[in-house]
Amino acid sequence: MTASPAVKTDALPPFLAACRRQPVAHTPIWVMRQAGRYLPEYRAVRSKVGFTELTRSPELAAEVTLQPIRRFALDASIIFSDIMVPIEGMGVALEYAPGPVIGEPVRTMKQVEALRPLNPAEDVPFVMEAIKLTRAGLPAHVPLIGFAGSPFTLFSYLVAGKPSKEFSVPRAFAQAEPEISAALMDRLADAMIVYLRAQAGAGAQALMLFESWGGLLGPNDYRRIALPPVKRIIDGLKDLGVPLIYFANQCGSNLDSIATLNADVIGLDWRTSLGAARKVLGPSKAVQGNLDPAHLFSSPADLRKRVDEVLADAGPGPGHIFNLGHGIWPETDPDSVAQLVDYVHERTAK
Amino acid sequence: MTASPAVKTDALPPFLAACRRQPVAHTPIWVMRQAGRYLPEYRAVRSKVGFTELTRSPELAAEVTLQPIRRFALDASIIFSDIMVPIEGMGVALEYAPGPVIGEPVRTMKQVEALRPLNPAEDVPFVMEAIKLTRAGLPAHVPLIGFAGSPFTLFSYLVAGKPSKEFSVPRAFAQAEPEISAALMDRLADAMIVYLRAQAGAGAQALMLFESWGGLLGPNDYRRIALPPVKRIIDGLKDLGVPLIYFANQCGSNLDSIATLNADVIGLDWRTSLGAARKVLGPSKAVQGNLDPAHLFSSPADLRKRVDEVLADAGPGPGHIFNLGHGIWPETDPDSVAQLVDYVHERTAK
Repeated sequence: MTASPAVKTDALPPFLAACRRQPVAHTPIWVMRQAGRYLPEYRAVRSKVGFTELTRSPELAAEVTLQPIRRFALDASIIFSDIMVPIEGMGVALEYAPGPVIGEPVRTMKQVEALRPLNPAEDVPFVMEAIKLTRAGLPAHVPLIGFAGSPFTLFSYLVAGKPSKEFSVPRAFAQAEPEISAALMDRLADAMIVYLRAQAGAGAQALMLFESWGGLLGPNDYRRIALPPVKRIIDGLKDLGVPLIYFANQCGSNLDSIATLNADVIGLDWRTSLGAARKVLGPSKAVQGNLDPAHLFSSPADLRKRVDEVLADAGPGPGHIFNLGHGIWPETDPDSVAQLVDYVHERTAK
Repeated sequence: MTASPAVKTDALPPFLAACRRQPVAHTPIWVMRQAGRYLPEYRAVRSKVGFTELTRSPELAAEVTLQPIRRFALDASIIFSDIMVPIEGMGVALEYAPGPVIGEPVRTMKQVEALRPLNPAEDVPFVMEAIKLTRAGLPAHVPLIGFAGSPFTLFSYLVAGKPSKEFSVPRAFAQAEPEISAALMDRLADAMIVYLRAQAGAGAQALMLFESWGGLLGPNDYRRIALPPVKRIIDGLKDLGVPLIYFANQCGSNLDSIATLNADVIGLDWRTSLGAARKVLGPSKAVQGNLDPAHLFSSPADLRKRVDEVLADAGPGPGHIFNLGHGIWPETDPDSVAQLVDYVHERTAK
């Protein structure tokens, strides 16, 4: 006897069903940086260990990943790590202060060619261990997301050497040295493919690529520079059969390019209308987002109004995963997150 | 005998003609922050005087305003000053480090009510003096632009107390304290109206409002919070008869709101397609922009290609003022600016 499609759909956790644009019992919600400094229990862990040590300890990484799941009725979990972790695995010395600071910024072809190809099992085994431990600790209805940084975003940190408001150094470098830039992003794309495949192999049930800085490029540059390595990564993961999410920060002008990607879900920042984006992205993609993190500082009544606006903008059809439009701010009151999660569930319950 | 319209149009400097969407002999160009650190002659002046002293000295402000006009065939000049200058005039203690740092960030209604209404002739007379001196030193075909900051942008600095990457403090404050926020922006709008009127009275031939940070708001918040005081300023200047320019940084998602403003020209950042923007803004507005400042680091051949892309995006119709999509970076080679200005003129000569 074969399960009917309806039964099969009901069996999928709401997050995975929404990724596949299937009907859901309620709109699933999770929060970017949900394991983080706004939680006292996270700060308690961090008071004892540094950030790098935390990313390298499977037990502690699993612990902080599970913290928000214990507190809130979240519909997905994302492994605690950092997009620069695999870069360290490729032999680049860096530290967090608190953003990544690169020992020797990458600006020559020789440095690009000296980057070690990533071997996840040898270079970053603790990430896969953390995924296994977290998966074992999660309820069945809460899928675990693995992630990586986009090539242009990683390139921006590697060339700048440190976090920056406008990343003028890598943006100028990409214009002045297009060949070196493309070679670097190519290597980064290769590494992120094997890295994300390893995360799926360890139990990640969805994979997310963070394009934090591609939105600093104008539409033509985005299409020429940032998009091709992303396309290669996504095509290189498609056979895994897990939902692929591309978080396109500040990319409202790049949606026509993004529509050409084979991603299942496009994450959108708070400045991009979900409704307008869906028109450009077409019916084959789900969307994720996009409450302004600032709205968690509103009164409870205003917060509900802002949630209603996001839901109205997303529209009634399937394929919406509620999230913030950017990472949650450290100053946020955890009670606001509880109100947000519960209200999204209540408001969208079928 | 009355001059024919054709003769009248020819007589207008290309910049002013383009602001009014009239035909021009060539696309006019100027560069945001054209008086600035990328010029050795500017650095020479700054090696002798601090930033605040420079903004308060009419002779020196006029001198640095004229420097780029002597070097390049620019079609417009913008008075050297800073958007926070009138804020100091309202009694707020601040210093530049190098961005504005506010002695006591404004976060209470009492502080808002204590702000002095601006009296430009008494509080910032040196700005009007600098405008008069600059106008006297400029060739007739190079109009002089006066400017101010938008209320939300000034609010962001006043509430944050210091420059910030994401301005999370004022963005949270705007949600948590909507009444205080609106009252503060209201006072700022009143002040900017009298300030810009005084600049026009002193000889500014166009007025520009810089919305540096409104693009940090999502589309609904932008319309609710940032737009109303801008609308009030623009309507309060319309009778002056000088072109009004609104530089809407990172506002690609807010163009439908911006289309409702009575501004003559909308300045666009490099991430917003000029062509797409013109469709939303309609035929009654000119556009200004929007080469990525990073493109001034390209090879000369690539720079020309990027200029061609901007011109193609703007389209062949009247009402385009070429500019960068953001302020020029201090590391820029002045020779690239010369190439840019000359190529825009050559390429668009009728």
